[in-house]
Amino acid sequence: MLERRKPIPIGDAVKKMMEYQLDGKTEYVSIDESYGRFLSEDLVATSDVPHFDRAPYDGFAVRSIDTKEASLNNPVEFKVVDHLGAGLTSSKIIKDYEAVRIMTGAMMPEGTDAVVMFEVAKAYEKNGTPYMSIKRSFKKGDNVSYRGEDAKKGEVLVKKGTLINPGIQAMLATFGYNSVPVAKKPIIGLFATGTELLEVDEELVPGKIRNSNSHMIAAQIQRTGAIVQYYGKLPDVFETCFTAVKTALEKVDILITTGGVSVGDFDYLPAIYEKLGAEVLFNKVAMRPGSVTTIAQLQGKLLFGLSGNPSACYVGFELFARPIIRKMLFSTTPHLRKEKAILEVDFPKANPFTRFVRSAFSIKEGKLSVTPSGLDKSNIIMSLSGANSLMILPGGTRSFKAGDEVEILLLEDQAGSVWPW
Amino acid sequence: MLERRKPIPIGDAVKKMMEYQLDGKTEYVSIDESYGRFLSEDLVATSDVPHFDRAPYDGFAVRSIDTKEASLNNPVEFKVVDHLGAGLTSSKIIKDYEAVRIMTGAMMPEGTDAVVMFEVAKAYEKNGTPYMSIKRSFKKGDNVSYRGEDAKKGEVLVKKGTLINPGIQAMLATFGYNSVPVAKKPIIGLFATGTELLEVDEELVPGKIRNSNSHMIAAQIQRTGAIVQYYGKLPDVFETCFTAVKTALEKVDILITTGGVSVGDFDYLPAIYEKLGAEVLFNKVAMRPGSVTTIAQLQGKLLFGLSGNPSACYVGFELFARPIIRKMLFSTTPHLRKEKAILEVDFPKANPFTRFVRSAFSIKEGKLSVTPSGLDKSNIIMSLSGANSLMILPGGTRSFKAGDEVEILLLEDQAGSVWPW
Repeated sequence: MLERRKPIPIGDAVKKMMEYQLDGKTEYVSIDESYGRFLSEDLVATSDVPHFDRAPYDGFAVRSIDTKEASLNNPVEFKVVDHLGAGLTSSKIIKDYEAVRIMTGAMMPEGTDAVVMFEVAKAYEKNGTPYMSIKRSFKKGDNVSYRGEDAKKGEVLVKKGTLINPGIQAMLATFGYNSVPVAKKPIIGLFATGTELLEVDEELVPGKIRNSNSHMIAAQIQRTGAIVQYYGKLPDVFETCFTAVKTALEKVDILITTGGVSVGDFDYLPAIYEKLGAEVLFNKVAMRPGSVTTIAQLQGKLLFGLSGNPSACYVGFELFARPIIRKMLFSTTPHLRKEKAILEVDFPKANPFTRFVRSAFSIKEGKLSVTPSGLDKSNIIMSLSGANSLMILPGGTRSFKAGDEVEILLLEDQAGSVWPW
Repeated sequence: MLERRKPIPIGDAVKKMMEYQLDGKTEYVSIDESYGRFLSEDLVATSDVPHFDRAPYDGFAVRSIDTKEASLNNPVEFKVVDHLGAGLTSSKIIKDYEAVRIMTGAMMPEGTDAVVMFEVAKAYEKNGTPYMSIKRSFKKGDNVSYRGEDAKKGEVLVKKGTLINPGIQAMLATFGYNSVPVAKKPIIGLFATGTELLEVDEELVPGKIRNSNSHMIAAQIQRTGAIVQYYGKLPDVFETCFTAVKTALEKVDILITTGGVSVGDFDYLPAIYEKLGAEVLFNKVAMRPGSVTTIAQLQGKLLFGLSGNPSACYVGFELFARPIIRKMLFSTTPHLRKEKAILEVDFPKANPFTRFVRSAFSIKEGKLSVTPSGLDKSNIIMSLSGANSLMILPGGTRSFKAGDEVEILLLEDQAGSVWPW
């Protein structure tokens, strides 16, 4: 009577799913709106940086040849013939023993090839005309930032798929990217199923609970970099669910449902996939929590059937939906970043299947350590709030002890990993 | 002729500034807009979780007393008198040797105190009436999630000042926080000064560069959790700058300027502070880059005068503006998070002043390692794009070698640190 599903290893499940990854699309946004988006094209230097030779310090621009004989016993005097702030240019061509008073960032006047910092020059006036003298020599290029020193025109400076951070924002401005090519945010449709669900603003009644999964997944979708299109909650009624899913699927890039995917008496998603004509890629994964995670595809579009159990739902999203979304954001490392950490406490349970334990990792003396962030019953949402990682305990292993090395997946990290981990 | 400023240690500078920290304010936002905001009040459990005894698995709810005699040789039979999906309640009071078919999440029917999972029950029909039998006994509470097991009403579950992540989002929904108290985002005014600055969409001309600092700082402000109010760029003309700064200051929580703060001939900020009647807390910090970082206060409002040099500007923002903003977001750890890491390459320069080197840290075999993210000339914006940390090389130290342990500040981390580090 009970449907028997054959669990497949998580690696196989991910691989099977990634065959249906979708390409990202580009849209152009104003540079004022590009922070936190993902570059959809390489960032290329559109000019040299700096694009002219310039003074990196306040001082006097001189011809180094004129300083050759300067020494402690032989100060050399220069007539100061111009005064340049940043952004200004000198119309003068500098001749023998002439200098220009120059500010940081200003363009080197024609003829000059070194900057004497204020600290090593003595400035004075003679009959209202400014002069300065120095007691040491300078070489060509001393204290000059040369054109192209930082970047050469045409260089690829940042690869597409990179998250735009404040430093990249500065580069976009430097190179005149007033309009920035970024990955269009995928639109992820979301339904919650379950007769037991109340809205957030409804009073609790016996047997019913407020719909928390939709709000959690909506935040996970945003964290990943996509847009959530929430279609509401559905009762456990087949026809209602079928029509809603079919209609929504046409309007989104990916459709996520929570609940209704197991083998319970009111779990209608399997029948909905069948009636839609969708191909179920798998409906049971050898992992805990989230073993009932089901992924189907219809005409190349993915349907994610996540568990109604909060922890299983959370884990299912991060392992499966995240990489598909990140691929659409041009990431080459779309999976959760995997690292090693030292377990801080005993974990006495055996792991017949690969287990993903919601955990809090911290850094102690430069080393990662990790501890489960709450009781590990899969219906406990509390442990999700403090979780910044998922500890991976491989299937077939026995209990773990404090001090053991384990692998963890970082939830708040943007760098990501390739697959297989 | 050259103004002499006395540098103060960075610790003293931060301490002096933090005396002017401002309190945060609360605003209420819809739960749909609360992801990524900072809680301005503790998140309190408004009910027990679960708020009724419930089945954590699909199975049969029974009275454990009726299972007492069940064994391999003595199967005990139950009449299945009801069928409960999640969200439904039974009107029946369960009597001797009666059972209710129950789905995960459904409320335990009155009289029952254990759940027999499908896998260990044999279900069948007799004359159209459903029955099931078991061959083992169950104790009171077996496979039951009890009311209050996860959280008790009134418990503080998340402290104010915490960034709302997907797990907290789920908790907010569970406890009916349809409207969420979050820290109002501070409004940070921003000016760039410098005659050399072009807008992003302007063509390059000799001597001028595009204004990259404003876009960089705008992104840093957003990363910190505040709103930027950009007032444009100002030429190096005293009266224009003075009027603009005075007017803007009235409309924002904090005012940041970039450039014009050094001792160059066209650096007008010091004179502007004086004319405004603002008290300069310090105008020189014993650090590189960013030594000219100047902070002034006027009637309790802070003015940040950051260097026009991109790297100095970046570092100055993170060390000084960030903690002030994070305090307004109710953070108890408002400073950049400090950790230890192993230096991967030699750093041959001596450090007369504490140096903050833009760096990329990575994790190798569970240990943090760090490498400068570019050449360390302070006018190189390129190195900012790959930077996820600032390496701290304390003043008075000589060169560092690969393998040395150093301290780093994490730029993309949300946890933060207290001060002193």
